[in-house]
Amino acid sequence: MGKVTVALDGMGGDSHDPQEVVRALRFAFNLKPSLHVRVFGSAALQQALSAERFDRERISFVEAPENIPQDASPKTVLRNYQNSALAQAIEAVRAGDAQAVVSSGGTGPLVTLARHHLGCIGNMRPALAAKIPGGTTRFSLMLDLGANASCSASDLYDFARLAHCTLNLAWGIPSPRLCVLNVGSEQEKGNKLVKSARDLILADQRLNCGGFVEANRLFCGDADVILSDGFTGNVALKAAEGVAHLFAHQQGLKRFFALLAKPEWLQPWHYNGSILLGVRGNVLKSHASATSAALGVAIVEASKVAELDLCQKIAQHLDS
Amino acid sequence: MGKVTVALDGMGGDSHDPQEVVRALRFAFNLKPSLHVRVFGSAALQQALSAERFDRERISFVEAPENIPQDASPKTVLRNYQNSALAQAIEAVRAGDAQAVVSSGGTGPLVTLARHHLGCIGNMRPALAAKIPGGTTRFSLMLDLGANASCSASDLYDFARLAHCTLNLAWGIPSPRLCVLNVGSEQEKGNKLVKSARDLILADQRLNCGGFVEANRLFCGDADVILSDGFTGNVALKAAEGVAHLFAHQQGLKRFFALLAKPEWLQPWHYNGSILLGVRGNVLKSHASATSAALGVAIVEASKVAELDLCQKIAQHLDS
Repeated sequence: MGKVTVALDGMGGDSHDPQEVVRALRFAFNLKPSLHVRVFGSAALQQALSAERFDRERISFVEAPENIPQDASPKTVLRNYQNSALAQAIEAVRAGDAQAVVSSGGTGPLVTLARHHLGCIGNMRPALAAKIPGGTTRFSLMLDLGANASCSASDLYDFARLAHCTLNLAWGIPSPRLCVLNVGSEQEKGNKLVKSARDLILADQRLNCGGFVEANRLFCGDADVILSDGFTGNVALKAAEGVAHLFAHQQGLKRFFALLAKPEWLQPWHYNGSILLGVRGNVLKSHASATSAALGVAIVEASKVAELDLCQKIAQHLDS
Repeated sequence: MGKVTVALDGMGGDSHDPQEVVRALRFAFNLKPSLHVRVFGSAALQQALSAERFDRERISFVEAPENIPQDASPKTVLRNYQNSALAQAIEAVRAGDAQAVVSSGGTGPLVTLARHHLGCIGNMRPALAAKIPGGTTRFSLMLDLGANASCSASDLYDFARLAHCTLNLAWGIPSPRLCVLNVGSEQEKGNKLVKSARDLILADQRLNCGGFVEANRLFCGDADVILSDGFTGNVALKAAEGVAHLFAHQQGLKRFFALLAKPEWLQPWHYNGSILLGVRGNVLKSHASATSAALGVAIVEASKVAELDLCQKIAQHLDS
């Protein structure tokens, strides 16, 4: 396998401290000796990187100090931000200078630019997919986590096909169990959207439909894939994060006990790096408030996706 | 204030142990000395209640052994289950024999029968509303939690009006801050539903619109009222429950530390008893898997709502 280069948007995310990016890269280089990163960012970031004296073979820098506001509209993004760090990082993937891109910037701008520069598979709408733990030894892929504020049943069916391919190619699961997130597991529960989506998945003989899964079972490994529209998926995962945060951030002794009580397998930063499925290129979103270690994990995750050439393989599979 | 009678569906819920109902009643009678309960249930339940020798002035019993399956369709409920414990308990409220009803049965049957027997306020669709803790000293009212699998923006606006009245009348908050659950707090975030709902609430000068709130802030007290469609609200609360359950139900030492670490104010059973707003009568839903103590809390909650004559007062206010 040839050298893999990950393009990093050095400007996105809540933290604007260049040292956070430096620490993330140090961690990522340690985890992945073959990794090369092309960083897009400000002069301050370039200085911080130079001071760290990373191996020059492993890092390159492009000055692109412009950051995109989280809530910029698609039109604004395409008109005013083509020189931003994120736009240039995605363009590097299109041009073949990098094989994957990582950004902690806003989901909207990321999806807009990825669609524009890399194109979509067929008429599919891209979806953000995250690996989440399902107990101590299992994982689930959950999507969409916010690329689409509203979805049709046929969008959810497309997400099912994308997830099926992803688990075939990246996780070695030949027939992943696909479940639709719903308010109940009984087959008559839910709204028209989830019932129609379930029926479309059931009707496709190539897919393994597991019916519905409830939100209180998100982290129980009941499903290999958890499907939902981007609005519901985003709300579900944020509600889960919120409660985990409440437990972790208490006062005094309770904070100490919470640290001891925390399930080892439920460490959100271990799973940072959602992949944007449905575009013709490897695009990963890191959490906006990711710590440096979490950003490092996302960069390594991107390099693994790049080594597999995952998104192009999915495209080939679904195009044929 | 006159005697208040709560009608209890003794058949709904996951547990079919009559002793659970007995324990719930013992707890409720202790908490609320003026409480009277009319229990609808099986002969086995009647026996268990007799053996307990409750004060006869405080309890009466109607034999109604029939329970409704959680997922029975509205048509089936209305055609086949008019003699069920739940139907008779709701009818007791309509007839004035009780001033509130409590059931741990399925949401669908509960809503169907409440609409049928008690009627709705105007053209409103009823919504399930729960009090949830927002930190150590604050509370929020969250709705809809699953009475409606899909909602329009004008439904959400109706929920806002119902919640506004509820907080005026029951919590003494003159101008409650109403927020719509969304994937971001920025005003351009989200789908058409939540943006239209927010605009309808903003346009009503009588209401205090607080914009959007994110799901990771559910238990932070940012809003007095958290509004969402029943699908999203149900998923959000179940996702939160799921994570709290993961922390609480671990193995060995971690289980012990989790017990010590648990925030005192985040005890779901303290908040059991969601009120069905929008119908012309006081209807409370208890969690299907409620413990006896939690069911006791819901019964006391129902008696408080009955003392306030809450749902009739809301109806008068909105009819005028």
